[in-house]
This record gives sequence, C-alpha cells and structure tokens, in this order.
Amino acid sequence: MQDRKHTPVKELLASTEVDLEVTVKGWVRTKRGNAFVQFIALNDGSTINNIQVVADMKIFSEEDLKQFTTGAAVGVAGTLVKSTGAGQTVEIQATQVFVYGVADPEKFPLQPKKHSLEFLREIAHLRFRTSTFSAVFRIRHALTFAIHKFFNDRGFYNIHSPIITGSDAEGAGEMFRVTLLNAKNPPLKEDGTVDYSQDFFGKETNLTVSGQLEAELGALALSKVYTFGPTFRAENSNTSRHLAEFWMIEPEVAFADINDNMTLAQDMLVSVVKYILENCEDDLKFLSGRLLDEEKSKPEAERSPLELIEKLKFVTENDFVRLTYTEAIEILRESKPNKKKQFNYLINEWGADLQSEHERFLVEKHFKKPVILYNYPAAIKAFYMKQNDDGKTVAAMDILFPGIGEIVGGSQREEVYEKLHRRITEVGIEEKSLWWYLETRQFGTVPHAGFGLGFERLMMFVTGMTNIRDVIPFPRFPKNAEF
Amino acid sequence: MQDRKHTPVKELLASTEVDLEVTVKGWVRTKRGNAFVQFIALNDGSTINNIQVVADMKIFSEEDLKQFTTGAAVGVAGTLVKSTGAGQTVEIQATQVFVYGVADPEKFPLQPKKHSLEFLREIAHLRFRTSTFSAVFRIRHALTFAIHKFFNDRGFYNIHSPIITGSDAEGAGEMFRVTLLNAKNPPLKEDGTVDYSQDFFGKETNLTVSGQLEAELGALALSKVYTFGPTFRAENSNTSRHLAEFWMIEPEVAFADINDNMTLAQDMLVSVVKYILENCEDDLKFLSGRLLDEEKSKPEAERSPLELIEKLKFVTENDFVRLTYTEAIEILRESKPNKKKQFNYLINEWGADLQSEHERFLVEKHFKKPVILYNYPAAIKAFYMKQNDDGKTVAAMDILFPGIGEIVGGSQREEVYEKLHRRITEVGIEEKSLWWYLETRQFGTVPHAGFGLGFERLMMFVTGMTNIRDVIPFPRFPKNAEF
Repeated sequence: MQDRKHTPVKELLASTEVDLEVTVKGWVRTKRGNAFVQFIALNDGSTINNIQVVADMKIFSEEDLKQFTTGAAVGVAGTLVKSTGAGQTVEIQATQVFVYGVADPEKFPLQPKKHSLEFLREIAHLRFRTSTFSAVFRIRHALTFAIHKFFNDRGFYNIHSPIITGSDAEGAGEMFRVTLLNAKNPPLKEDGTVDYSQDFFGKETNLTVSGQLEAELGALALSKVYTFGPTFRAENSNTSRHLAEFWMIEPEVAFADINDNMTLAQDMLVSVVKYILENCEDDLKFLSGRLLDEEKSKPEAERSPLELIEKLKFVTENDFVRLTYTEAIEILRESKPNKKKQFNYLINEWGADLQSEHERFLVEKHFKKPVILYNYPAAIKAFYMKQNDDGKTVAAMDILFPGIGEIVGGSQREEVYEKLHRRITEVGIEEKSLWWYLETRQFGTVPHAGFGLGFERLMMFVTGMTNIRDVIPFPRFPKNAEF
Repeated sequence: MQDRKHTPVKELLASTEVDLEVTVKGWVRTKRGNAFVQFIALNDGSTINNIQVVADMKIFSEEDLKQFTTGAAVGVAGTLVKSTGAGQTVEIQATQVFVYGVADPEKFPLQPKKHSLEFLREIAHLRFRTSTFSAVFRIRHALTFAIHKFFNDRGFYNIHSPIITGSDAEGAGEMFRVTLLNAKNPPLKEDGTVDYSQDFFGKETNLTVSGQLEAELGALALSKVYTFGPTFRAENSNTSRHLAEFWMIEPEVAFADINDNMTLAQDMLVSVVKYILENCEDDLKFLSGRLLDEEKSKPEAERSPLELIEKLKFVTENDFVRLTYTEAIEILRESKPNKKKQFNYLINEWGADLQSEHERFLVEKHFKKPVILYNYPAAIKAFYMKQNDDGKTVAAMDILFPGIGEIVGGSQREEVYEKLHRRITEVGIEEKSLWWYLETRQFGTVPHAGFGLGFERLMMFVTGMTNIRDVIPFPRFPKNAEF
C-alpha cells in the first residue's frame, strides 16, 4: 500500500469513468455502518468533499477497521464505482485498507461535532484538518495565485521589497525593532544612548510597514511593478480586524495618474473575485452555509444583507461609484443618520476623517455599490501623496466594500522634487533618511501612482470569516506568537 | 501628451502592423545624430530592447530635444514605421515630444558607459534602470511566477508561514530578535534576566529561519502545500553567497517518501528553468553576453565551462544522477584530486561533510550532470529527518548544480512519534517549544517529505550573476540595510 501511487480525492470525485482500480490516501472524517457494511468518509485536503469508502464486512473484520476513527491517516485500495447514495456520484468499494497513523478518540481534539472558532485558533496546528479552515486556506492559495496571474497577464513585474528596513520614514505605523544586540546590556555611546553602530546592520533596523517606497523605485525603471509580501504593525490592537503581521499587495505604475490607479484597482478586485467564484465553488458554498449558520445567532439588524456568493457578485457585477471626498462629506452631512444623530461621529465640516460607520453608510445604504472615494484633505493623508492644484487636497483614493469598509488605499505620488521636499520637511522627516527616494524625483521623475491592498481584508471579504485571525494560518497579535 | 494612452515598448517592437499612430513613454538611454536627424533610444523597462525614436530636425528644434539626455523621462507621439536601421524591425517617426523629468548629465550617475556592479550596488535605487539589472529583475519576476504556476498546476496550496516566530527550535541558524522592549533599559525579572513576558508577544520572538515546520502542519491536512516567503539568518557572513534576508520555497507533501521528493524537486527545477528559456529569451541573451564579458578578465581555468543558455539547457536536457552519500564518498575517495591531494579537504572516511569542491567535482567533472545525493549520515543532518533502518543514515537529499553547488536541500521527515521524540531529546531541544509539531505525529501521522529551495541561489544560476547581492533588489548583509 505504501508504495502504491494514489489519486487525489478531487480527481476521483470528478472522474467520469468508473470501475477503475484506485488507491486513495487521507484522513478519516467519520465512520458509520453496521455488521454488514461500513461507510468511511475520507478527506485528503485536495477538496472540501469527502470520498465515501464502502467496506464490505464479508471482506474485512472489525479488527481491520478498529483504528479507522476520526482523524486517523489511512490508505484504501479498491474499485471506483457509481454511488447509489445521496450527495456523491462515485464511491470506492474497498479491497484493501491500511492505517498510517492512528488518532486516539480519547485524545484527538477534532471530533465530528461543532468546535468554536476560538477553540480552533488555540490548535492552529490542527485546524487545517477542519472543513472550515481547509476551505479558507484553499481559497487563500487561489486568491494568491489569482493576484500573481492578474499582474503577470498585464505585464507587471513582481518586486520583493525588503522586510528588514533601516528607514524609519515609511510613516504607516509603529514598527518592531530587529536586533542582535545584547538584550540586557546593549553597548552604549558616550552620550548614554544605545550604540546601534555595533548592531548587525550597523544602525537601528525595523520590520517594514510597507514596500511602497521601494516599489516606486522599481516602477520608475520597469514601468509596472507590484509587491506581495509580509508587512508589520507594532500596534497594541487586540481586535478582530488587526494583525501584527499581515500580507500586502502594492502595485505601482509609472506614467499613471489617480484615475488610472482607480481603474487598475477596480479591475484587479473584479478579476480576482471572479477567479474565486469560478475556481472555488465548493469551498464558497460551504463557507456561505457556515456564515448563514453563524449569523442565525445574531440579531436581524446585524446580519449581512447579502449571502456570501451574492456579496461577491455584488462586486463583480456592479460598477464601482467614484466620488470625491468633498462630495461624500455633502452626502453624509445631509444623511438621515447624521441629522438624527445616529452616527457616533457626526459629520459637521469638511476635513473630518471618515469612520467605518460613514464608509458603510455610503456603500451599503446610499449607493448600494462598491465606492471609490478620492481627493482627500492633505492634512489627513501621507507625505508622499500628489498635491492637487486646489492647495488643500491630495490625489488619494480609498476603495470601500460592503461589510468590510476600506479594502484598498492608494494615491498618485508627488513626483515634483520641490513639492515632495517641502512636505517631507513640514512633517518632520529627516531628509537624509530618504535621500534615495528624493533622488528619484531629480533624475527622470514621472507621474506615477499605486495602491495597497490588505490581503487578509480581502480574504475576510471573500471567505465571509469575521475575525482576521481566522484567514491567516498562524496569526500574530499582542501576546500571541504561537506555532 | 500626459493624457494620451501609451503602449509598452515590448508591444510596439512585436507589432506586425506599421504606419500606426502611437505614443510611447519611457527613459532616454542614448541620443545621437546630426543637424538633420536625431536618434533617441528609449526604454520603458517592459523589455531589454530600446525603441528607436527618429526626430526629423525639420520638425523639431535643438531646444525641443535639449533635455533628451540619458536618464530623462519623456513621452513621444508619432508613427510606427518599418526601420531601415540594423537591430530593429520598427521605429517611431516622432511628431510630438514631451519631457516629464530631466536628468542633469552633470549629476545623473548612470551615464552610457560601463559601471561596475559594486558601484551599482551603492545606488540600488537606480540600478533597475540599467540593462543588466532590469534583465535580472524581469527574470526574478518570471521565475517567481513560474514557481507559483508549477505548484498551482499540480494541486499544491500556497501556505504563508509566519515570519515572526516564538519557536527557537528550527535549528537552521542564528536568528534576529524582534522586540518592542526598551533597548537601553528593558524590564528585568527577579533573577535579573530580561522579562520578555512584558514584550509585545509576551515572550522572546525571532525572525523565522524556515517555514518548513509550519508547512508540515499544512501538508498533514491539505496533502500538498508550499511556502514562498522571506527567511533570515543572523550570520556574520560577508560573502558573495550569503544574505541576511532571502526568499525560500519550501514544498511539503503527505504520503510521499524520499524518492517522490527527489522527483518533485527535479520536475520543479526543470519546469521553471524551461519557463525562463521560453519566456525570457532577450534577457537571457543579454546576460549571457554580460557573463562572457565578465569572464574575459578571469584566468581560463576559472571561467564557466558552459555559456549561460547552454548551462540552463544542461539542466533541462540532462537526467539528474541519483546516488547515495556512501556511493559519493567512494567516488571522491578514489578520485584524482583526492589522491593527488588537490582538495582542500581530503576525503578519508565515511561521515565527512562534503564541501563545495567535492560537490562541484561530482557535478562538473565526474558525472557532467546535475546530481542528487541522498541518505546522508544522521550526525551531520537535522533532527526532523527520517531515520533509515541502517541506524546511521537519514533520508536526506541535496541537489547539486554546476557552478553553484547545493541548490536544494530536503528530506523525508520522521513521522514516528517515538523516534522523533528521542531525537529531539538527544539534540537538546526543549520538548515544550515543539508541542504542536510533536502532536502531529500523535494524531493521524503519515510519511511525508519536502525540500527547501533558496530562491536567490536559483536566481544566480539562471541569470549567471556571480554575487548574490545582485539578484535581490535591496540586499541585506552585515552593516548594510540601506534603502
């Protein structure tokens, strides 16, 4: 058995031929039956669907199947036949069985019953073996591939931006320090501060919060690039929407403005969501049912207005609305929840930072479409964004999705040396820490634009999982770096 | 001009139609000509090839083209016509020109002359704009995509293994510490040691040296997975073959043994190298010429025996030789360089760790084929490798390539709880730091195998670049974390 080539369950279930001799290897999900016949549901992770193994008890003894308990790893050889049972077209009539690894029912934590997501998070090393998490992580793969394929098809080049950075000017949030200095007694300089010149990299280094600045360097030579890598925030946010370590996609395009940028982001989102609708149907159906179940326990008002697959089609089948921040403020100021003081943060004047409640109102109630907001007040946005001619806004854009709020944030970049230099000085960034970034504006600078997509935010949207810790294999958050 | 849609140079050069009105945007590589006509070589990074812009000086004034110096960012509208010049099939007869960003010839460091790789490393923010580095990074993208495509086509799922790890048992090398504690005055415990329970994650954390252990968790549920992400080594190795931050690909397969593992690795290497041969022809030709040039200055004996493209075909067209460590030791012991004491490390007995000189002898001199060595002495290999029945070897394998030595290292994993547990104790790893890894051997364990491919090593092989710092955009090494 061990030397026999096996076929993935996914292929067997899709087989149009029957009466084939096959071998399958996987983990037992359930076993039921009687003294005459036993039915074993076997899963190998290639698909959410199990294959049914039928063991005729004239051939097998009770002893043969004793270790076929939930979680056990087994091999089965037999004949692939048409199934008479409901829910599957084929099944395996077993002729030979083998146990690779047992799973003591007294000790194996994943029994065939409902486990809470919180419990499964504690055993993240085993949760891949559940229907929910195997579906989530198959989709995570498909979404990763769809993103690479989208950019590759359009002539973008993937750039691996650095993880360890000596630049503290990215400005996107608090950073983790990376060091080899003695933790208790670091070397000190004469003035009593820590002497980072003796550290591995000869200066203070941190984990990157964004690959954008480096992606810009690539775009200003290769025209179209994107990053896809891990980024970090050392923020003490113990919420269902934040991680200390997460993955970002950051495309950057030369000779492009804010309008090109909005079009690219919309095309990308529509393309990758379509890819999932077309390639992950079984997993989506399962997750849709899971979400409906989960929401049964919630008050009606808090439930999603749309079922999972409808929500994905809401994105692929609706045009995105584009409106300026200024237009959005007008709509919000005149809105019912603002006038009735139902918003937690009332919108009174131009310049206010929009909260999640405002974003969701625009998407879910007012437009009932995905929304792209652009031209934000300069004061609430980053230093590198293109300063508009009005002297008060920048060419920034955010894409807002139902249920999730902001899923993409981007901008045209300030490509004029003098304007960028002035802004860097205004916000108090040390010029010499960004000498290389400034130099690109001195030598062959061009209008360019890009955006950041939080991969786990997109995963939450696509899978319907409501806690970000459930869409990444091993989540990192305050007080947790297990596995 | 700014609002005009432009076409990538790559598409224009491939155009079979002519007499089209086109717009192109990119950076000036060179300008030459006379009072009647000027020729501008324009590159936009979409391909290594420039498009020739012909400016009729009856239409343009000298003033119009004054800023068309090397490195300037420009736009050109005109007619795509058949070229009468050598080296290109089409060119653009300019009707309109525009300068986006100048590049002062007195200051712009990239002039049309040969720059050393060392100098270009100092200006890594600009080196994307050279022929050499644009070729290298286009190939880096293509190789990244080819790897994802290979695994996706074969039903593997991409797993994002964690970057920040609380486990110090990966055993592959020295680690960087990730911390938010005060660098000068960290909190201390009563016994005077640093109190990591007050750190962000509540314990000491490091940057990962390998995603393998987590990939195993995925494979033991989804059957076939792979990681593709950054890994780190805090080793003070200031060589042309080591980086502190580099990317690794680590596939892991359930119900697979060491033979399946060797076949998978060989298939992957052949597949991705073929992809590059088929999709990156122009870049490879350029890099092949570059390597020949570089080697002219070397003594004959140190030059590559094969030209770059021949070397890649050496991999795709030769079967890989598989032999055991024991067989390799026999060959090496009896070899001419061993008998003549030409090896720096002479091979006298079984158990010796092979050096690069021995690996290269086997590949380049003895077999003249890529070589897979397997079944190494347990004493020189990692704790998680499958212990063979002979009691002294483990089911490890290394793939050796010409010029580069080890490019892949892998093994079947020890799946038997008792054997793994014993080995962990023997090598002195704290059991409780690997509780989750050990648990997978208690619940539904199966034979499984995987390997690690150092992405930059493969990049060096494919591009012919001889310093690892030249195949990653922003290299991290001792005393260097610039950009």
